[in-house]
Amino acid sequence: MKDLKESKSIQTVSVVGTGNVAWHLSKALHEAGIRIVSIISRSGIRAKEMAELTGASALTDLADNTSLPDLLLLCVSDDAIPHVASQYRYYKGLIAHTSAATGLDVFTQSQGPSGVFYPLQTFSIIKEMDYKSIPFFIEASSEESATLLAGLAEKISGRWHYLGSESRLMLHVSAVFASNFSNHMATIAQSILKDAGLEFDLLRPLLEQTTEKIKELSPTDAQTGPAIREDMKILETHLKALANKPDEQKIYKLLTNSIIKYKHKHE
Amino acid sequence: MKDLKESKSIQTVSVVGTGNVAWHLSKALHEAGIRIVSIISRSGIRAKEMAELTGASALTDLADNTSLPDLLLLCVSDDAIPHVASQYRYYKGLIAHTSAATGLDVFTQSQGPSGVFYPLQTFSIIKEMDYKSIPFFIEASSEESATLLAGLAEKISGRWHYLGSESRLMLHVSAVFASNFSNHMATIAQSILKDAGLEFDLLRPLLEQTTEKIKELSPTDAQTGPAIREDMKILETHLKALANKPDEQKIYKLLTNSIIKYKHKHE
Repeated sequence: MKDLKESKSIQTVSVVGTGNVAWHLSKALHEAGIRIVSIISRSGIRAKEMAELTGASALTDLADNTSLPDLLLLCVSDDAIPHVASQYRYYKGLIAHTSAATGLDVFTQSQGPSGVFYPLQTFSIIKEMDYKSIPFFIEASSEESATLLAGLAEKISGRWHYLGSESRLMLHVSAVFASNFSNHMATIAQSILKDAGLEFDLLRPLLEQTTEKIKELSPTDAQTGPAIREDMKILETHLKALANKPDEQKIYKLLTNSIIKYKHKHE
Repeated sequence: MKDLKESKSIQTVSVVGTGNVAWHLSKALHEAGIRIVSIISRSGIRAKEMAELTGASALTDLADNTSLPDLLLLCVSDDAIPHVASQYRYYKGLIAHTSAATGLDVFTQSQGPSGVFYPLQTFSIIKEMDYKSIPFFIEASSEESATLLAGLAEKISGRWHYLGSESRLMLHVSAVFASNFSNHMATIAQSILKDAGLEFDLLRPLLEQTTEKIKELSPTDAQTGPAIREDMKILETHLKALANKPDEQKIYKLLTNSIIKYKHKHE
């Protein structure tokens, strides 16, 4: 790969989409000194808000741009990428999507340079975030495009890696477990507490320590609780306590068995 | 309940057991200025180490104590509590266990005052921890004993609540989801990454942000990912990617369905 400093860099970006990723990446790029020339979207309200925030124009079509951007960044849902990519099949500039689960090959119809610019993070519109914490995973149709996208990530967070489509998919699957499913465990905990008339706040010190531990330990070493100890008495008491919550009881059983299986696999 | 300041307080404690909870509570009590008079255990090595650390004697039987402690604290596994409690059925001093899933009624044979002193935290022996972050959940056979135990928790962390056996059990079940199961999600993520030749470290910024978010948002509001969006295309791609990991695939399916169910329950 080329040295980042030797290559030209991306100065202007048009963002397609207005979802959580579009919102936060526009903001992140804007704050990193990149000019967002346009926010392209068919639905107007959110696009206008984003455009105001970043000094961009809110457009419904790229053709309305007065000049072409250095990068056309598709921040649309995975379902929409094939359609949007095909809409831009005659586009000759650098085009990239931001999806983990979509291959670079979605751009095969395109004749211009293409890439993937995937930010591994959990984006909620209502939560301010530190963009320096986002690692980007980059793939591109040419070395030059890869270097350009890496240069962009360098400006936002300084954290980036080149990664092919297959590895990116497995990274995404692992992220669903580590982030989405783990957050859902907190949701279930909150629901159990609520039904017992208890506040979720009681768990906060435990939640913090749980994360704190895996900053230093591998999650395998950090595992505690009745499942890893195979404490059958507690496990039975807990399953009984969940008797009137069959869905949560099923999850409790499956995850307990999984913890025990993993333990014996690693012994 | 009595005002803590009006009542006498616990000055000396004997700890029964040498597991992770015994280890950390002995240390926490010692650091809070409580005198650990003895560590009582049949297996010697760990008891000696704990005794040295806290200035206590390592004993195999409470009867070897020269004077009785203000509190006899049973930090043994749930399985062992009934047996150990019955061993001390003639003991007249304050006795308490530290288990979430065992009722106060395990002490019915005892004629002395009894209680529960449950620290809600994930204890690993290899990890240093800040004892100020531990909330204690207290139950006792009398108001006086409850106040004494609260006074002890006040010295360690200042965080304590009175809670009955049934609520404590549900709190524990919720903690298993929020901490043990959530840590297991990270373990599965690590295993998926490993098989793909990727480092667990790549997920660290995501893990941190996942916890960071639920400091401000309720876990329901913090949920992101393909399941909550019901993005069927990604969900199918992920299930296919897990084709040669049937256990993880089963967990993926069950938790995805659960996220979708919870979403519609709350709509």
